[in-house]
Amino acid sequence: MCTGLSVNKLLIQGKRTMSSLFEIVEQGSIVSPRGFKAGGLHCGLKKTTRNDLGVIVCERPAHTAAVYTLNIFQAAPLKVTRESVAVEQKLQVMLVNSGNANACTGEQGERDAYAMRDAAAAAFSVEPHLVGVTSTGVIGELLKMDKVLPGIANLPQHVHNRDGEDFCQAILTTDLVKKEICVRVQIGGQSVHIAGAAKGSGMIHPNMATMLGFITTDANIGGAELQSLLNEVTDVTFNMITVDGDTSTNDMVVAMASGLAPYEPLNERHPDWTAFKAAFYYVSEYLAKAIARDGEGATKLIEVEVRGAISDESARAIVKTIIGSSLVKSAVFGADANWGRIIAAIGRAGQPVNPLTVDIRMGDIVVLHQSAPVVFDEDKAAAYLKGDLVKFEVNLNGGEGVAVGWGCDLTYDYVRINAAYRT
Amino acid sequence: MCTGLSVNKLLIQGKRTMSSLFEIVEQGSIVSPRGFKAGGLHCGLKKTTRNDLGVIVCERPAHTAAVYTLNIFQAAPLKVTRESVAVEQKLQVMLVNSGNANACTGEQGERDAYAMRDAAAAAFSVEPHLVGVTSTGVIGELLKMDKVLPGIANLPQHVHNRDGEDFCQAILTTDLVKKEICVRVQIGGQSVHIAGAAKGSGMIHPNMATMLGFITTDANIGGAELQSLLNEVTDVTFNMITVDGDTSTNDMVVAMASGLAPYEPLNERHPDWTAFKAAFYYVSEYLAKAIARDGEGATKLIEVEVRGAISDESARAIVKTIIGSSLVKSAVFGADANWGRIIAAIGRAGQPVNPLTVDIRMGDIVVLHQSAPVVFDEDKAAAYLKGDLVKFEVNLNGGEGVAVGWGCDLTYDYVRINAAYRT
Repeated sequence: MCTGLSVNKLLIQGKRTMSSLFEIVEQGSIVSPRGFKAGGLHCGLKKTTRNDLGVIVCERPAHTAAVYTLNIFQAAPLKVTRESVAVEQKLQVMLVNSGNANACTGEQGERDAYAMRDAAAAAFSVEPHLVGVTSTGVIGELLKMDKVLPGIANLPQHVHNRDGEDFCQAILTTDLVKKEICVRVQIGGQSVHIAGAAKGSGMIHPNMATMLGFITTDANIGGAELQSLLNEVTDVTFNMITVDGDTSTNDMVVAMASGLAPYEPLNERHPDWTAFKAAFYYVSEYLAKAIARDGEGATKLIEVEVRGAISDESARAIVKTIIGSSLVKSAVFGADANWGRIIAAIGRAGQPVNPLTVDIRMGDIVVLHQSAPVVFDEDKAAAYLKGDLVKFEVNLNGGEGVAVGWGCDLTYDYVRINAAYRT
Repeated sequence: MCTGLSVNKLLIQGKRTMSSLFEIVEQGSIVSPRGFKAGGLHCGLKKTTRNDLGVIVCERPAHTAAVYTLNIFQAAPLKVTRESVAVEQKLQVMLVNSGNANACTGEQGERDAYAMRDAAAAAFSVEPHLVGVTSTGVIGELLKMDKVLPGIANLPQHVHNRDGEDFCQAILTTDLVKKEICVRVQIGGQSVHIAGAAKGSGMIHPNMATMLGFITTDANIGGAELQSLLNEVTDVTFNMITVDGDTSTNDMVVAMASGLAPYEPLNERHPDWTAFKAAFYYVSEYLAKAIARDGEGATKLIEVEVRGAISDESARAIVKTIIGSSLVKSAVFGADANWGRIIAAIGRAGQPVNPLTVDIRMGDIVVLHQSAPVVFDEDKAAAYLKGDLVKFEVNLNGGEGVAVGWGCDLTYDYVRINAAYRT
């Protein structure tokens, strides 16, 4: 038991130890935790026939925690979900549509979001305040409610506990692959599941929350404990990815706990708290990395670790500056070991850094030591950078602060996708 | 006389009036101000035969003002130039090389920068502290001093007052076009010139100064007045452009005044101060816009104006967030009137904004009024966005703060250029 250990320290110092605390459920899904079902269908918001309406349903009101974008222009559904959660910190039905973000849609947009909530409450026979609503897609266009409302009415027939496939398909926009994970952890001698699903893949530079993330668990945990854990974990997982530096209007991560696992309520004093926390962190990190890897146009996942900063916060700011640099991202796309762009990013991050003591490694290749260039094998570096996972390790040698973050390369396809997204 | 008027207010409120205060010299160049010569040659740092070494020389020590990058990893030549200017706030020889930034090159890099200064002092028979040095190009590689030093020795033979062509060619890296401007203004009944030259075009997100900018004038102005004016003007010109959000290690703007214009010294109490300031502003804005327009891979100049912010500083932060957004830049490249990306950028700028009172115009097309979407003609908008100058006007309706900034679109060519810059 080490309840005081921050997730950040867990992450950096004990990643290998952590993974022994839980196991990955190979065929697991968002509905593996007891009490959850999910489904999806095509109601007509997307031009293709892909699913564009999805739902997660719990057999009883689930303790719920949520984090929302800090973008000032929060989309209407976020307001509605926030109101719902505020009533008793529980949700039973989590509704989502893709193809339209219902953001910057004024009063009509709010009325539409409330109408979606009411329709889902009616369809699933629950109180409106037990329904959360979230949307993703184009900003500034009104929802086609003549498509959405009949779709919601049909949803109950499409809900099942077979897998999360229909739901996961319903939340994708420019994503290429679904992002879903399930782990199992022993709490009080009983199996508990934590599962998650998420979407990216553009306007990804989360601040307090990311584009859509959904976590389900059958853990017996209260809303306050769940919210506290979600806050802590989000800061070092979803908030540590960037695709393009743009923080969306619709970012939200929701965690729902059915409480159906049969043991004493979980909290920081529980002997298995660390295992649960490690498993919860793993689910969040997995989804965050999956979003970064599937960033618009991306061919690679970039992982940046900064050590030796004056604080964890400072390390995080530097990590985000490096993974957000268009020049670093382009160099990775071109497999160019241009570490000068990394050093330039560190230097403009607005953090205290000693310009004489910086070490940089690309994989296991040292390219900078004590701020002086190290001669390295360019061919070996290029070969490393051509892989689909590129790691940069920076040691500032100036303190104990550490952070890890994830991004992706900047490619022709990012430009292609975003030059013609709306039209 | 309106000496208290800030450049920002001059800019926004009196742009048309301003331009009547001075005239553009069509064939003018960096050597049009009395007392200045310039030149350039190819010494062997660039792989092509393009000029890679340039110099501006004044016939006597010129009052000099300079602003430098805030990147922590300032390149060696900046340290040397700063030391030179500190002695008597004068420079007579301003040396520049392209093809190698001499940044992150450790103690050897510093020795090389001092050696360049000493060589130029010897070649032009001036004291070393009257020589400034600046470099641009790849970070982290040592300069080929066996090319640079003979080049400097040859420079005096290549210096002339015909035009700035050789010098302007010598400062380019990935730039496609030279950036040069000259204006004439009447001070005390006498003609005074202000001229400038600059380079971009990647790693452009200046903070206190930009990639290289050189301003010459024959105005009779002291170093303190020139520095104060340069600081004020840089904040609203060079510091208001972004190509890729990356602040370079080598940014510097230098202004040199030969003082050869025959009239009383210029200062804020001089009756023609406003005219001089307007002309100086115009030169800086021209160069800043030219850098943005020639950003790596750019096909368009984007101008963003924000009004109605709580302060000018707040407006500036919002402008920079919009012009720095990869999604906004990609949409402009694709001529997609996707104003949702502008609103998302405003909302994540970290500034106080009322989410209900925002107006947005693209050219003269209103797309958002009081934060509600306005139906507009998509074809007309697309036609406007296909032009080579795209203006976005945002009114937050929340105060008196105003700012204007410039950027460029994000294109396939930006990715191509930066995926293979070094190799």
